[in-house]
Amino acid sequence: MKALIFDVFGTIVDWRSGVAREASLFLNRHKGHPADPAQFADAWASRYSPAAEEVRSGRRPFTRMDVLNRENLDTTLTEFGIDVRSIPTAELDDLNLAWQRLDPWPDSISGLERLKTKFIIAPFSTGNASMLMGMAKHAGIPWDTILGADVVRAYKPMPDAYLRTAEFLGLPPEEVCLVAAHNDDLAAARRCGMHTAFVPRPTEHGPSQTSDLEPLEVWDVIAEDLSDLARLLGT
Amino acid sequence: MKALIFDVFGTIVDWRSGVAREASLFLNRHKGHPADPAQFADAWASRYSPAAEEVRSGRRPFTRMDVLNRENLDTTLTEFGIDVRSIPTAELDDLNLAWQRLDPWPDSISGLERLKTKFIIAPFSTGNASMLMGMAKHAGIPWDTILGADVVRAYKPMPDAYLRTAEFLGLPPEEVCLVAAHNDDLAAARRCGMHTAFVPRPTEHGPSQTSDLEPLEVWDVIAEDLSDLARLLGT
Repeated sequence: MKALIFDVFGTIVDWRSGVAREASLFLNRHKGHPADPAQFADAWASRYSPAAEEVRSGRRPFTRMDVLNRENLDTTLTEFGIDVRSIPTAELDDLNLAWQRLDPWPDSISGLERLKTKFIIAPFSTGNASMLMGMAKHAGIPWDTILGADVVRAYKPMPDAYLRTAEFLGLPPEEVCLVAAHNDDLAAARRCGMHTAFVPRPTEHGPSQTSDLEPLEVWDVIAEDLSDLARLLGT
Repeated sequence: MKALIFDVFGTIVDWRSGVAREASLFLNRHKGHPADPAQFADAWASRYSPAAEEVRSGRRPFTRMDVLNRENLDTTLTEFGIDVRSIPTAELDDLNLAWQRLDPWPDSISGLERLKTKFIIAPFSTGNASMLMGMAKHAGIPWDTILGADVVRAYKPMPDAYLRTAEFLGLPPEEVCLVAAHNDDLAAARRCGMHTAFVPRPTEHGPSQTSDLEPLEVWDVIAEDLSDLARLLGT
């Protein structure tokens, strides 16, 4: 294994707390239906997958995640009883950047720093390159390079997303390992010939999370967190 | 200006000395015509531009620089009287990686570290992503991200190379500044709406270099080296 690529939203950063934090300030300024900011974050996030499916299916040309998120923000605000037409575009655009201003899990940065001494480390995300770069600058994530979904022009779990990433890294898939907190992401990586490492993030979806608490296959590496992964990989 | 993008071969790394150093060892093992290793480096490098022109013109589909360099290596060795068929492919492939094992100019790394505190810093090169990543790992170049010519699928000075790079950075061209030791590269960046910074590298082509010793236009910034650029840009 020469390169480790990482799922980002959930595996490296705590998107739910970060988006809820910014939504809370916004929802205090613009009153709609009574709303819990974390529920707002969940509702906004839940619109990503159907939007990406439009792209994956070919019904819509490739569209960057920051554009999809911005569209979904309008829909979500409307759902929560807020009139988006009453809000300046710049303020909505700024809230959309909440997806860049996310904090890493406590073990993420130190784990990545250790893993970087032995491997190429890069994000493997549905996020686009500029979004992932803004996040890396905000959070101090020490990526060697950033290959967003807009670079490979494909959303996982499509095989092209995995295979083109390996190609840009100049490596065959078997020299690349995907690190993720999501079993379905790892299953797709394995089908493409990549190695797989599972790191649980049991509160990604909040305190009552029921999915991805355990590895569902015998992944190549199963670690408690990124510090543990660094230890298991000898760094 | 939010992002600085840098020409790499010549501006960040001393390709001629690095390639000559590896060629010297190789030419000692495989005798052809008497050859100066620096002349060999020049001859090998001089074949890049016509090869890239095949791609720029559309006569050849986009082909990565490491592939072009590998083809040009065979031709250059033949020109220097060496029978490439007598040499193991793995040894030729390894010599081709000389283009990744290049040393930065003395001011490059410290200058980039300072500039990184205020700007996004990324290479803007004819090199492909994996080549630039190998180089960054070798030389400790602290890029925020790496966008190779294979990511934008265009070789400079084609406008697409500049414009698609700005797009991946999520910035309009006027918020991007190209830093280069080459006047023609800066001229093309200016035509695309980017800012421009000139840093002379008067020995890139050896002690008797005649080109690019001086700025040929009034570039936005003219610096002595990357330390001076960091000072001029307030970092």
